[in-house]
Amino acid sequence: MFEIPKKPYGKLDLISADDHIIEPADVWTKRAPTKLKEKAPKIVVGADGVEMWKVEDRATPNIGLSAMAGKSFEEYTAKAQNYRDMRLGCYDPKARVADMDLDGVKTQVCFPTVPSLGGENFFSINDPELRDWAIATYNDWVVEEFQPTAPGRLIGLGILPLYNPQMAVKELNRIVKRGVKAVSIPCYLEGAKDCKSFVDPWYDLVWSACEEMDIAINLHISSAKRGGSEFLKNPLPGTAESYITSAPLSNFQILSDIIWTGMLHRHPKLKVVSSEGGIGWVPYFLERADYTYNRHRYWTKSQLTQKPSEYFHRQCYVAFISDAAGVACRHMIGIDNLLWESDYPHTDTTWPYSHKSVEQSLPGVPEHERRKIVFENSQRIYHLN
Amino acid sequence: MFEIPKKPYGKLDLISADDHIIEPADVWTKRAPTKLKEKAPKIVVGADGVEMWKVEDRATPNIGLSAMAGKSFEEYTAKAQNYRDMRLGCYDPKARVADMDLDGVKTQVCFPTVPSLGGENFFSINDPELRDWAIATYNDWVVEEFQPTAPGRLIGLGILPLYNPQMAVKELNRIVKRGVKAVSIPCYLEGAKDCKSFVDPWYDLVWSACEEMDIAINLHISSAKRGGSEFLKNPLPGTAESYITSAPLSNFQILSDIIWTGMLHRHPKLKVVSSEGGIGWVPYFLERADYTYNRHRYWTKSQLTQKPSEYFHRQCYVAFISDAAGVACRHMIGIDNLLWESDYPHTDTTWPYSHKSVEQSLPGVPEHERRKIVFENSQRIYHLN
Repeated sequence: MFEIPKKPYGKLDLISADDHIIEPADVWTKRAPTKLKEKAPKIVVGADGVEMWKVEDRATPNIGLSAMAGKSFEEYTAKAQNYRDMRLGCYDPKARVADMDLDGVKTQVCFPTVPSLGGENFFSINDPELRDWAIATYNDWVVEEFQPTAPGRLIGLGILPLYNPQMAVKELNRIVKRGVKAVSIPCYLEGAKDCKSFVDPWYDLVWSACEEMDIAINLHISSAKRGGSEFLKNPLPGTAESYITSAPLSNFQILSDIIWTGMLHRHPKLKVVSSEGGIGWVPYFLERADYTYNRHRYWTKSQLTQKPSEYFHRQCYVAFISDAAGVACRHMIGIDNLLWESDYPHTDTTWPYSHKSVEQSLPGVPEHERRKIVFENSQRIYHLN
Repeated sequence: MFEIPKKPYGKLDLISADDHIIEPADVWTKRAPTKLKEKAPKIVVGADGVEMWKVEDRATPNIGLSAMAGKSFEEYTAKAQNYRDMRLGCYDPKARVADMDLDGVKTQVCFPTVPSLGGENFFSINDPELRDWAIATYNDWVVEEFQPTAPGRLIGLGILPLYNPQMAVKELNRIVKRGVKAVSIPCYLEGAKDCKSFVDPWYDLVWSACEEMDIAINLHISSAKRGGSEFLKNPLPGTAESYITSAPLSNFQILSDIIWTGMLHRHPKLKVVSSEGGIGWVPYFLERADYTYNRHRYWTKSQLTQKPSEYFHRQCYVAFISDAAGVACRHMIGIDNLLWESDYPHTDTTWPYSHKSVEQSLPGVPEHERRKIVFENSQRIYHLN
């Protein structure tokens, strides 16, 4: 039976590198200047009583699977959830901290929801003024309300107006000064309005700015889409589960693109985090990439001057929930490159039994390695003192 | 320095589950009835002297990367190769057997090239008579010329007219009686003309026939395409290497689809081989699929009655070249589910040093496990006595 603990865990010795905040309903409306009052992203209620986030002409409900903390697996549902259906900690920062106490988690690094995981839902806003404002306002809410609720315990990833690299650099400077510790970018930026693939040198000035300020870019699985899977258009039973099973592997391709196109070669201090991608495939990825480097770099005239695995070990971080194969092969990945995550309040979450999950998923891992994986690596990357 | 051994290895104790035959120029022309003489797939030579395979109006050269056996990595090239540029063993079955002797390989299980890996290049032939005939003629060549060159040593995978399931069953019956031991199907059949996704129940009669005759279906990475990668349209440096690095992972999605949609549940005796997909990601795949089953089967009303990993262990086989992470975690995959492969004459090939590659990639693996991986499992699945 699924039971929620009644009192705090007692220790706060985990940092989770990937969680999700469902924004309170008033983030944009209460900050809107008069001329944007009408247009600001807001909750509207349909005739069926379902709450929807309205962003320009688009209205989307809160997907059930994004707010399942506190529900048993038998209760999981993809159906729309109104705020009153969700556990308070999904959208209320104070309640979230109380939930973290129950779970023994000191800090959560949180992705946005309404702007999408990397901000891409806002990139497609047609009104240019509204677009820039909606992004900046999300960042303002992070530094003015979300993070101050519990300094050092709630980290909100910033988002950038990547449809304009110069403006993205400006916004990055602004929000880092205000307290943003890292940013989230969409995995498939080339699918976003007015954007290019993030490996395109068009973005070099943004990544240079990230290097300079030591701001890690976080790439969450399923943030935007690449291509279209014919299969997903096919409503055969099992399609949803197959999608859920395979989703983390998109970050295999992403890391491959980032390394091979020279993005890390050109930005040797840039830190890249793969969020919710798991780690069991990483040793294979590194082997396969080096095998390819060994055999193919002559005819392709590769610009890389080191093996792909060396760029990875120097600059990439991979977050996972529980992953026996990855933990067994952790030295192939690098102890300093591993980040634990709790994925609160999504369906994969370990809440409220994160310690139990960690103990089960790190069998035989020595304490100094364990501490790096569940605490110190994230502490370093996200500048948590 | 790359040197080709001058005498046979001395032992023939490896079976390779994935190699490639480049068809001799006369496979179709010499078998064509008078009325198809003109239309039969044939070699034409362009003004630039490049040999091209002409299939209806389409003409494609032999891609260099498909015929690199005997070349050093520094000599690898994607440029078109005429027959005289290739090592004889690429297309001449007798010379191939001599190359296998040098390498100590008893048997190669070979995929077609001109019809594409799963026959899909022929599926798109517009003339229905030519289409059926081109497929059947490939199979005839396999059983009349290719395999008889060295019985039990050269195995040619059959191809099926999957645009018509009834006809596919008929062709399967015909070729199995003539000596075909297993078949190849395209990974993304829904992208092929007149076909559906192979997990669609439309194909159940084909898979039932495979079960009944104990004919394994082989799914080779990069056989047909799913969706379209925006990234691949982007000619940034590194794109080719990123594609080569990531290509094996398509079989992660394929196995996921096959299991979740109930194809193995409906066909409990069907054997499925993942070719050139590698194995390092398989332990992660199995964990992730079972994690998904544990959490999501209630709301999805999954039709599966066992954990995904149980279907895998019962029915799936995964071929690899050299794969340290996969070998380290081999017991999570299953010793009986592993197949070694040499990928002759593609760029990934271990030829002519397959024994050296096997020794390096199976460190500390006990002899009885090694024998299963490099010989006995393939012997069983491909009916090699």
